[in-house]
Amino acid sequence: MPVSELSRIGVAIAADLLAEFDALIEKRGYTNRSEAFRDLIRAELVRERASKPSGRVVGSLTVVYDHHVRLLEEKLTELQHTHSRLIVSVLHVHLDHDHCLELIALRGASGEVRRFADALAAIKGVHHAQLAITASSDAL
Amino acid sequence: MPVSELSRIGVAIAADLLAEFDALIEKRGYTNRSEAFRDLIRAELVRERASKPSGRVVGSLTVVYDHHVRLLEEKLTELQHTHSRLIVSVLHVHLDHDHCLELIALRGASGEVRRFADALAAIKGVHHAQLAITASSDAL
Amino acid sequence: MPVSELSRIGVAIAADLLAEFDALIEKRGYTNRSEAFRDLIRAELVRERASKPSGRVVGSLTVVYDHHVRLLEEKLTELQHTHSRLIVSVLHVHLDHDHCLELIALRGASGEVRRFADALAAIKGVHHAQLAITASSDAL
Amino acid sequence: MPVSELSRIGVAIAADLLAEFDALIEKRGYTNRSEAFRDLIRAELVRERASKPSGRVVGSLTVVYDHHVRLLEEKLTELQHTHSRLIVSVLHVHLDHDHCLELIALRGASGEVRRFADALAAIKGVHHAQLAITASSDAL
Repeated sequence: MPVSELSRIGVAIAADLLAEFDALIEKRGYTNRSEAFRDLIRAELVRERASKPSGRVVGSLTVVYDHHVRLLEEKLTELQHTHSRLIVSVLHVHLDHDHCLELIALRGASGEVRRFADALAAIKGVHHAQLAITASSDAL
Repeated sequence: MPVSELSRIGVAIAADLLAEFDALIEKRGYTNRSEAFRDLIRAELVRERASKPSGRVVGSLTVVYDHHVRLLEEKLTELQHTHSRLIVSVLHVHLDHDHCLELIALRGASGEVRRFADALAAIKGVHHAQLAITASSDAL
Repeated sequence: MPVSELSRIGVAIAADLLAEFDALIEKRGYTNRSEAFRDLIRAELVRERASKPSGRVVGSLTVVYDHHVRLLEEKLTELQHTHSRLIVSVLHVHLDHDHCLELIALRGASGEVRRFADALAAIKGVHHAQLAITASSDAL
Repeated sequence: MPVSELSRIGVAIAADLLAEFDALIEKRGYTNRSEAFRDLIRAELVRERASKPSGRVVGSLTVVYDHHVRLLEEKLTELQHTHSRLIVSVLHVHLDHDHCLELIALRGASGEVRRFADALAAIKGVHHAQLAITASSDAL
């Protein structure tokens, strides 16, 4: 956050619960307990926002498909173009002889992002489509 | 926690992130910010523990089944008896003419609890079986 | 389902994908592949229905709390009474000297069920509250 | 799958359950019921595989961070280099004046992929890190 002031708040917590939390975050690589708290808070805010169709989110759709399936690439391209205002950018990986991995960076209303993901998953030849919603673009 | 001392820790957090969190927890009905922090921590510890097969958990299995299916109730009873050390107690509800809802309170190793849930879900006539893992029994 | 006719449909599926699926469901204890398909379908329908606030669901809320916390039991009782039309029945377990496990069987609109779960989780002394949504009551 | 034969199997299913499933997949855009069944199966196989630390998976990590945080980009680069055998490719997006979105394509053992995601999430300045596990690379 650019110029947001830092607040310093006090949190009361049972000593043994705190010890268990500290062990977990140390294992995960945190060197700063406040950072771990902030990440917990952000993740909860994202879960809340993503649950409302109009909530603004940023995310990605991870897609695996078989590029041999007839007309698949045309359908993917057309669907992405009709939703181009949601799509920020795309990363394409050739997984093996038959399969492609595509990571589609998305930004928009949670409901529209989900509908796009459903429509893409339904295309014949798309084997997996997994949506990750990470952050509201205006609440970063 | 029986007589665990209370620690009071300081957390540094951007003012606008804190404001958004405060709005969320007020909407959910929290009157005390420390309580909301403690609940976030506990939920994260449970997620971690539940991800290890040997982690001790407490939870429930929510089951919907059609009691008209032949031999179903015998199979459910037998499976529950062979896993009786995991099962604390059971609540049975007659949902409608055909369907029963059963809430099975469970305590044990995360891996065993999951295997029991899978086995029960696989019985013919069991329409839904949903596992909720809430708390490690020794980390309460 | 009481007297619903059985349909018999054909599904085309790659032989190696089918083999992997058969291995999974055998491991889980299914003896009948159609039953495994039906369970997959039901689980997907429940996920869809639960994502709409007005969708009718059946489920459970699994709660762990410390009964020593002052006024907690009064608050739990009051909250449950103000939502009594959602609550079908309750199972109470004494986990240890300090902790209680409560399994609350719920039936109603997905949105109301979630709000009840949030409000209960926010009560001081409630350590965990985990919602499991299993089945729409009218789509069984 | 390159030259896997197609099997055609029969599935028995209650007519009203089938009708509800058909309505759902039509809404999602499927034009072919077998394709919807195959997608359900693949998703279930991925969930199973991802739950084992040694299961081979393909996926993505979606990361939002504030590039103003001191030393953050150095730490991200170093962590990615020490895990370079897991990382297939990276897409970088400038979200706004302060924030970057990074989509990291991953391939490897489920347990290693998760540890990498945890370590990256713990870096100060990383606001969100969301893992999407989509497909085992050898089970496509």
